[in-house]
Amino acid sequence: MTERAGVPMTLAALRALARAKLRAVGLAEDHAEAVAETMVAGERDGCASHGIYRLLVAAASVKAGVVVPDAVPVVSRPGKALVRVDGGGGFAQLAFARGLPALVEAARAHGIAALALNHVVHFAALWPEVETLAREGLVALACTPSHAWVAPAGGTQPVFGTNPIAFGWPRPGRDPFVFDFATSAVARGEIELHRRAGLPVPDDWGYDADGAPTTDAEAVLDGAMRTFGGHKGSALAAMVELLAGPLIGDLTSRESLAVDGGRGGSPVGGELIVAIDPAGFLGAETAGHLARAEAMFAAIEAQGARLPSARRYAARAHSLSEGVVVPAALHAEIMAIGAEA
Amino acid sequence: MTERAGVPMTLAALRALARAKLRAVGLAEDHAEAVAETMVAGERDGCASHGIYRLLVAAASVKAGVVVPDAVPVVSRPGKALVRVDGGGGFAQLAFARGLPALVEAARAHGIAALALNHVVHFAALWPEVETLAREGLVALACTPSHAWVAPAGGTQPVFGTNPIAFGWPRPGRDPFVFDFATSAVARGEIELHRRAGLPVPDDWGYDADGAPTTDAEAVLDGAMRTFGGHKGSALAAMVELLAGPLIGDLTSRESLAVDGGRGGSPVGGELIVAIDPAGFLGAETAGHLARAEAMFAAIEAQGARLPSARRYAARAHSLSEGVVVPAALHAEIMAIGAEA
Repeated sequence: MTERAGVPMTLAALRALARAKLRAVGLAEDHAEAVAETMVAGERDGCASHGIYRLLVAAASVKAGVVVPDAVPVVSRPGKALVRVDGGGGFAQLAFARGLPALVEAARAHGIAALALNHVVHFAALWPEVETLAREGLVALACTPSHAWVAPAGGTQPVFGTNPIAFGWPRPGRDPFVFDFATSAVARGEIELHRRAGLPVPDDWGYDADGAPTTDAEAVLDGAMRTFGGHKGSALAAMVELLAGPLIGDLTSRESLAVDGGRGGSPVGGELIVAIDPAGFLGAETAGHLARAEAMFAAIEAQGARLPSARRYAARAHSLSEGVVVPAALHAEIMAIGAEA
Repeated sequence: MTERAGVPMTLAALRALARAKLRAVGLAEDHAEAVAETMVAGERDGCASHGIYRLLVAAASVKAGVVVPDAVPVVSRPGKALVRVDGGGGFAQLAFARGLPALVEAARAHGIAALALNHVVHFAALWPEVETLAREGLVALACTPSHAWVAPAGGTQPVFGTNPIAFGWPRPGRDPFVFDFATSAVARGEIELHRRAGLPVPDDWGYDADGAPTTDAEAVLDGAMRTFGGHKGSALAAMVELLAGPLIGDLTSRESLAVDGGRGGSPVGGELIVAIDPAGFLGAETAGHLARAEAMFAAIEAQGARLPSARRYAARAHSLSEGVVVPAALHAEIMAIGAEA
């Protein structure tokens, strides 16, 4: 595969490089470790757009002053089954790590619990959060707004972010069932790739700033993207705005973009994660009911359909034994991080 | 509007008729009241397919022995923030009504809570549940499997039900923000309408029993419907199966169809409803943050896009002042219910 020509690295070496570069741009040690872990996980799972490439994005966010590099997350319990982490303007990864034990404890104690991450900077996918919870044996649902880039169904002006929804389900003895998708029609990065390549986009991806459908990638980036699935996807995008915005006292995507003020930084705001303990409703019958879920997964796979997480897990298995190959140009860009300082 | 020619009725008269007919087929008084309320609400809101027409469906379910007409719902608290109602094989409406107070109390006490309805018969939309909770000031999310009629993305054989997701958000001084949609590409009733009219369906609605795309409505009904939104809608459909099936110890859509054993009855199984109290995370700041949600709704409506619940609320306002008109043929069928006994 010629497009994978580049620098072969073990995951350990990649982790060390990511940590070193994040430290070099001024990120505190605990943040650098948490952020590096997410990028390594993305690269390991074959998600190039959420992989080590994000070092460039994170470094730019730190330099632009979008993120507080040494923020100290503060965990609180605003309700019996509620956990809040005030991220203090730092990256979301450390805030999640600090809130995780309390969320797991609260979900097991009450059957269901919610964790709000507030005042955090997002640049990553949500599947690491829900996969982590599913590996603890919990069912997890996570969502976050971003910047206002997406028009509601029936409109053409941006209101929503790309507003991903992620879900995790524990599978005893197997990798969890996990999905994580944007409620926008496509990922914003996909449109940017078309712009860089000078390629047109399909005319149902978005609108120009005047609200007209367009195949010009740059016009969509300056105008508005569409949601996936018409009015249904639009309804879900609104739900994400509400759940991970006003409900937890944090920014909507419109507010996040306004706060950014044209710096082009990663979205700043909140994230909501709900965790449910299957043992809450099922008690001693938990194993038997989880086995019925396996029968459903089997019925999907038996007809040749793939589970949402299957591709990532296959890439992971390969990366764990073979390492990864970082594209040469990207590797060079990464090596230059911090060197100019 | 000639298609609305028929029998004009006040909502009070419609309610009395629905209750009388449900009693006439043998439904217990409390069930008849709860079920009638749902049908009247659907007719009032302009949802003909979930309106008084459902009297025919409910009566058929009772006669076929699919529903236990005098089931006594039993409420329990399997966890601190969990409520369960065992519906005893009766209609879901009374089970929800009996569990509602405990769910509201649990959500306010813990910040978040979940209600499982188990062993209930479903024939209605989910918006009545989430709207009721939103009018209590809570944020609500509800879902239920149905019968296995829908193929996963990448496959052509039925695994999922039409698996609706409903969401409600409280709007102080206004009707709640509510959506409720099937994760199938279209409602199953829509395909049945095409079949009755002898019309072809678009070729992306479903597959025949051999897994080939088809425009034959009957072939889709005997084969498999598609999910909305490709692999994203398929992922959500799987989530609904898991949350309102194995997680609460109830049937998946495949199991529900197997239990039906060809009787053609309404799905039997479970429903999961999650309720979150905004005051949990927001405390004294609740009003201010709910006002920010209003700013988002305003940004949607200002560009001419409609909120998901707007059409229903407009129909409701009209029905409350003008009553409804039941189509003559449907009215005749309803009047015949119980007469043959």
